Amino acid sequence: MTFRSGRHFLQIPGPTNVPDRVLRAIDRPTLDHRGPDFAQLTKEILPGLQRVFNTKGPVIVYPSSGTGAWEAALVNTLSPGDQVLMCETGHFATLWREMAERLGLSVEFIAGDWRHGADPAAIEARLTADKEHRISAVAVVHNETSTGVTSRIAEIRTALDRARHPALLLVDTISSLACMDYRHDEWGVDVTVCGSQKGLMLPPGLGFNAVSKKALARNGSRRSYWDWKPILQSNETGYYPYTPATNLLYGLREALAMLFEEGLEAVFVRHARHAEATRRAVRAWGLELLCADEREFSSSLTAILAPDADRIRQIALQRFDLSLGAGLGKLSNRVFRIGHLGWFNDVMLCGTLAGVEMALGRKGGVAAAMEWLAKGG
Amino acid sequence: MTFRSGRHFLQIPGPTNVPDRVLRAIDRPTLDHRGPDFAQLTKEILPGLQRVFNTKGPVIVYPSSGTGAWEAALVNTLSPGDQVLMCETGHFATLWREMAERLGLSVEFIAGDWRHGADPAAIEARLTADKEHRISAVAVVHNETSTGVTSRIAEIRTALDRARHPALLLVDTISSLACMDYRHDEWGVDVTVCGSQKGLMLPPGLGFNAVSKKALARNGSRRSYWDWKPILQSNETGYYPYTPATNLLYGLREALAMLFEEGLEAVFVRHARHAEATRRAVRAWGLELLCADEREFSSSLTAILAPDADRIRQIALQRFDLSLGAGLGKLSNRVFRIGHLGWFNDVMLCGTLAGVEMALGRKGGVAAAMEWLAKGG
Amino acid sequence: MTFRSGRHFLQIPGPTNVPDRVLRAIDRPTLDHRGPDFAQLTKEILPGLQRVFNTKGPVIVYPSSGTGAWEAALVNTLSPGDQVLMCETGHFATLWREMAERLGLSVEFIAGDWRHGADPAAIEARLTADKEHRISAVAVVHNETSTGVTSRIAEIRTALDRARHPALLLVDTISSLACMDYRHDEWGVDVTVCGSQKGLMLPPGLGFNAVSKKALARNGSRRSYWDWKPILQSNETGYYPYTPATNLLYGLREALAMLFEEGLEAVFVRHARHAEATRRAVRAWGLELLCADEREFSSSLTAILAPDADRIRQIALQRFDLSLGAGLGKLSNRVFRIGHLGWFNDVMLCGTLAGVEMALGRKGGVAAAMEWLAKGG
Amino acid sequence: MTFRSGRHFLQIPGPTNVPDRVLRAIDRPTLDHRGPDFAQLTKEILPGLQRVFNTKGPVIVYPSSGTGAWEAALVNTLSPGDQVLMCETGHFATLWREMAERLGLSVEFIAGDWRHGADPAAIEARLTADKEHRISAVAVVHNETSTGVTSRIAEIRTALDRARHPALLLVDTISSLACMDYRHDEWGVDVTVCGSQKGLMLPPGLGFNAVSKKALARNGSRRSYWDWKPILQSNETGYYPYTPATNLLYGLREALAMLFEEGLEAVFVRHARHAEATRRAVRAWGLELLCADEREFSSSLTAILAPDADRIRQIALQRFDLSLGAGLGKLSNRVFRIGHLGWFNDVMLCGTLAGVEMALGRKGGVAAAMEWLAKGG
Repeated sequence: MTFRSGRHFLQIPGPTNVPDRVLRAIDRPTLDHRGPDFAQLTKEILPGLQRVFNTKGPVIVYPSSGTGAWEAALVNTLSPGDQVLMCETGHFATLWREMAERLGLSVEFIAGDWRHGADPAAIEARLTADKEHRISAVAVVHNETSTGVTSRIAEIRTALDRARHPALLLVDTISSLACMDYRHDEWGVDVTVCGSQKGLMLPPGLGFNAVSKKALARNGSRRSYWDWKPILQSNETGYYPYTPATNLLYGLREALAMLFEEGLEAVFVRHARHAEATRRAVRAWGLELLCADEREFSSSLTAILAPDADRIRQIALQRFDLSLGAGLGKLSNRVFRIGHLGWFNDVMLCGTLAGVEMALGRKGGVAAAMEWLAKGG
Repeated sequence: MTFRSGRHFLQIPGPTNVPDRVLRAIDRPTLDHRGPDFAQLTKEILPGLQRVFNTKGPVIVYPSSGTGAWEAALVNTLSPGDQVLMCETGHFATLWREMAERLGLSVEFIAGDWRHGADPAAIEARLTADKEHRISAVAVVHNETSTGVTSRIAEIRTALDRARHPALLLVDTISSLACMDYRHDEWGVDVTVCGSQKGLMLPPGLGFNAVSKKALARNGSRRSYWDWKPILQSNETGYYPYTPATNLLYGLREALAMLFEEGLEAVFVRHARHAEATRRAVRAWGLELLCADEREFSSSLTAILAPDADRIRQIALQRFDLSLGAGLGKLSNRVFRIGHLGWFNDVMLCGTLAGVEMALGRKGGVAAAMEWLAKGG
Repeated sequence: MTFRSGRHFLQIPGPTNVPDRVLRAIDRPTLDHRGPDFAQLTKEILPGLQRVFNTKGPVIVYPSSGTGAWEAALVNTLSPGDQVLMCETGHFATLWREMAERLGLSVEFIAGDWRHGADPAAIEARLTADKEHRISAVAVVHNETSTGVTSRIAEIRTALDRARHPALLLVDTISSLACMDYRHDEWGVDVTVCGSQKGLMLPPGLGFNAVSKKALARNGSRRSYWDWKPILQSNETGYYPYTPATNLLYGLREALAMLFEEGLEAVFVRHARHAEATRRAVRAWGLELLCADEREFSSSLTAILAPDADRIRQIALQRFDLSLGAGLGKLSNRVFRIGHLGWFNDVMLCGTLAGVEMALGRKGGVAAAMEWLAKGG
Repeated sequence: MTFRSGRHFLQIPGPTNVPDRVLRAIDRPTLDHRGPDFAQLTKEILPGLQRVFNTKGPVIVYPSSGTGAWEAALVNTLSPGDQVLMCETGHFATLWREMAERLGLSVEFIAGDWRHGADPAAIEARLTADKEHRISAVAVVHNETSTGVTSRIAEIRTALDRARHPALLLVDTISSLACMDYRHDEWGVDVTVCGSQKGLMLPPGLGFNAVSKKALARNGSRRSYWDWKPILQSNETGYYPYTPATNLLYGLREALAMLFEEGLEAVFVRHARHAEATRRAVRAWGLELLCADEREFSSSLTAILAPDADRIRQIALQRFDLSLGAGLGKLSNRVFRIGHLGWFNDVMLCGTLAGVEMALGRKGGVAAAMEWLAKGG
């Protein structure tokens, strides 16, 4: 492999650049997961997670990917044969649907064009029509990592309420948590799904479920590893029913500390600002955003329609050591995605956009972004 | 918390002391799990794992604890209602049984006294009696982490063969792999279960399944995260169907390199030597080993019967910053366990035994161990 | 202090960004500096250094700053009262002169305007006039870190040769070594002075002297710590006469490995390319380069004339977390300096220039740089 | 090289085992040594050092070894031809004397047998005889790293006072500071010399001078790098006159924090306790301590007379991966030295003594040490 001098720019929409502080926290001797120091660690982490999910209820941490946390949300609340309403917002919504079907759930998938978020009106209509309340849950992706389009969870909550429907609301925040405002309790979400490797600035390896009382009361499917109850019981004294991923938890403690030092509100403003700068660059390049509705712009990533998108990504990687996200599923080679989430700042963004601009062979994008950033946009 | 100078001695039977080389390997920037460097990483790791499991078949890596790898072994091969023969070798065999039952399997549990391994004759008798081959699998723990007793897997294989029974053989090697000789292929094991945090010298967070063709051909239960097939398919090109725990995989690459630098045979000899030294110390202290059959001594850990065992552990931790393993389940407060597995050497063992000896207020153990070690035992 | 998300851009002309590989190499347990592993380390490092200095002679490593290596060069070769010819190329040449005077040397300082390198013709003239060979040494800074102007060492060598003058030639390469072509032997340099924290990509803490036979034969001043001879004697068996800075030496081994993986020639091309891109940015901003002679452009850094330069630096630091070099000495507040040396790449450069452009409130610089970089300039 | 599993035991009398916390602190991106964050670092470190040296006066930090700090003490206070009174306490006192002579000082060396500290009565007699106050300084090693014998500095201070002699008192605390009680101000020491790699728990690379007003008022020799004055001047605003060893300073901040968390008094008690345990082991082995006067026992290290001592060290290293200190100078192959200083605890000591006991082929030492340690000795 050719030697590459300097820092790799990991600007896929996750995993994100892990801060040195977090890497160094992980790089500590493993401890006894049944000893008093571990209990102390748990007691620092869990309240921090509640603050990030905006919930007073429990947050469960799994040694798993975000995909595992998806499965946990489904198997703790739903049984084979249960009906779930899902929305085709993009590739990850499609994968979550496939998982649900493999787990024996009966999924109704509201079609989408991968350029819009889940439609609150369509959800409300469908739930209103479900007089017998056969639909057990509505499952939505807050921020579609494949499209850079968000779904308006608060409005979806309102849709459920107006339909007076008792379905659970399950939300995937894998690429939105700690990037954009999110309110598990206020929005009446029953299970919020997340992973460690995006806004939480950790390497991959941890999955999360924030859980409402209503969700906890459900029986769900046969399960063991994913079962919330023994975990919650062990968590009470600071432990886990099986060996937790201790070193990643060291990193999580540090990452939470960093988020609170910056302030969650400041974190959200920073992400929004970089997203806007990126969109201005895209327009200056004469390219089209995939996201079709400005109310649904993502602060975490921007997906850009571009002919021969994979070739652009390849040039960016080979010539500029810059990793961009590929178009996934039906967007393959039609879009590329810029991640601007996690541990990031203005000059990292400018470097990123410069790499894209050079790979594209276009002009004016970085200049447009700088204009926005410089005026404190 | 009181300040503790010097290095903590983590001598529980896992998680084990993670080598600095491995911690430093983990402490690297996360990379794109869909990029070419990641594929390269996979292609270095998987053959190394095959060598450690002694198999030409595939080894699957999960972002999970070892418990997750237990579940994966069961759900990929067995369906609710299927019969499984398990053996009560100790606390972890009991937990695995409980998991199997929660997953809807029908478990027949051959009783044991927690001082012996699984009985090959009993297994043979039970399988021979099962004329209709209702038993779908035999599941055994190779090295009971709760007791320091091994089960003789080669003899259990022979038991299955002599009973001409088609049941799958599932083996948990969580605390034996890379500590003691283990032969997935030669012993005709169908699924070998392991985790990262013991002989593999990593922090917890990875689970493993080595899989036979026979196991692969089974249908198993509804599953998604644990499903071997999409993982094997993605692995072919060096990837995973969901975000893998990249930084732990960096560590795994380094740990495998270390095992091969030392040589697996030398690793096994080292573990056996430290185990024998420990047993000599135990006898010199006038205490009793939990393991009742010398053919079943564990090289990974030693469990020791001692009145008020938890108080001994507490003294060891508080006065000497030495973590020992507790008695689990029905052995609670009746035994303590010394882990002598993973990244370890003679002087670390002597320090460990010295801490135990001082906590016990007994004499002669370290001297007995040193005598053995000094003569190149 | 305000929390700053994302990576700090350390674009002063040294210390430079230390690669993660080097930091991780330093982050290893300290070893016995009198044991066999240490001798092995020395034997890997010294030949690597010879390759970087382009010499077959010895290279001495001090636990010191680059300033210490300056002193070592002087006290090993010159005695109080000796005459030295130095050239006023900028702030560091001036500091070196002050050091020489404090050490009792009689310095003749050829005046300069801080915009040109040392003048070979002036040196030749002065040496030719020195019929009695009272001048013991000529000391020149290869790359003036305060001005971004290089001196043409090969031409200065020729000047000495044409004057048939036996003076030693002492050269400071603190900010040029491993950035620009440098040839200790071929250019007949007697002592080359360097430090760890610039092109060698290490934290500060090591100083270097590459030494000719002629220099070794000199008596020099009273000295102990800096004395080459006991070091050379100890080095023969792989050791040092006093405790060396072991962990920085681990880092040095890794840094040398990285330089050779990239290839020194490729390293020089990379630096030259980034320097040219930076100069194009400067011109696009409508600003003036401090370096007045294009033959003397530095590949390591660019100094830029700008009114109220300190305020620009302050904005860059506070708003964009970008450290730039200050104007030093008589250039205070009149220039700022951009370091583009060490572990660096195109997108890091674009991010850096973007930060400068926004701090300046000017336009077009990044675009000009990208144009140059994109065409593979 | 043979692969060695487990942790190396670095039990030479320095460099010592560097705590993970300190290594990880060093493993951080280098910062701008002229920026505001660096000034903050300096302002945290310098008061911490004053606390450790027990002085209200300045402490100077050099990028150097301890040998450099020796030279700094001499050249800042003494000029060629000045008379210094030194005491032959061992190898390092002899080396310091040689340095003084190379620097042109006239050294009177009170002979010693390398088994006793400096003799306060002999110093008093010599100073009393020096009616004309020709002796400019008395230089003593507080803890002779080559012998494990301390000199009683408070009594030497009294000797100077009783002789009413104005000589400066220079003290080397390289292997005693932060191990044993030391009082720069109270004992009227004029320059205290130290290095980073022993009680301060850092890798080698920093040298220290704590300086009295009287010392500051001296003119000293020609010097530049070692000159206190420009450093003190720069330190006022938090900076250094040349590039400081930033990453080691990060480590120093962390090491100081650790010392204060433990409490300096507790640090001294711990060292004394481990030294006594070691001496008990030595007696149980039937070997002789080099230190002949129990008032002068070192808490940092123990030197042991043993025939063929180098062979014992070789066995310890090759078979047990344990580094011991060699006999130096005239003690070569006649003693070996055990370091029990720095980041250390009871079980590390027991492991160390076990390695020595096995290498010696003797018995009873570890048992004797454990008896002392277990009763809270």
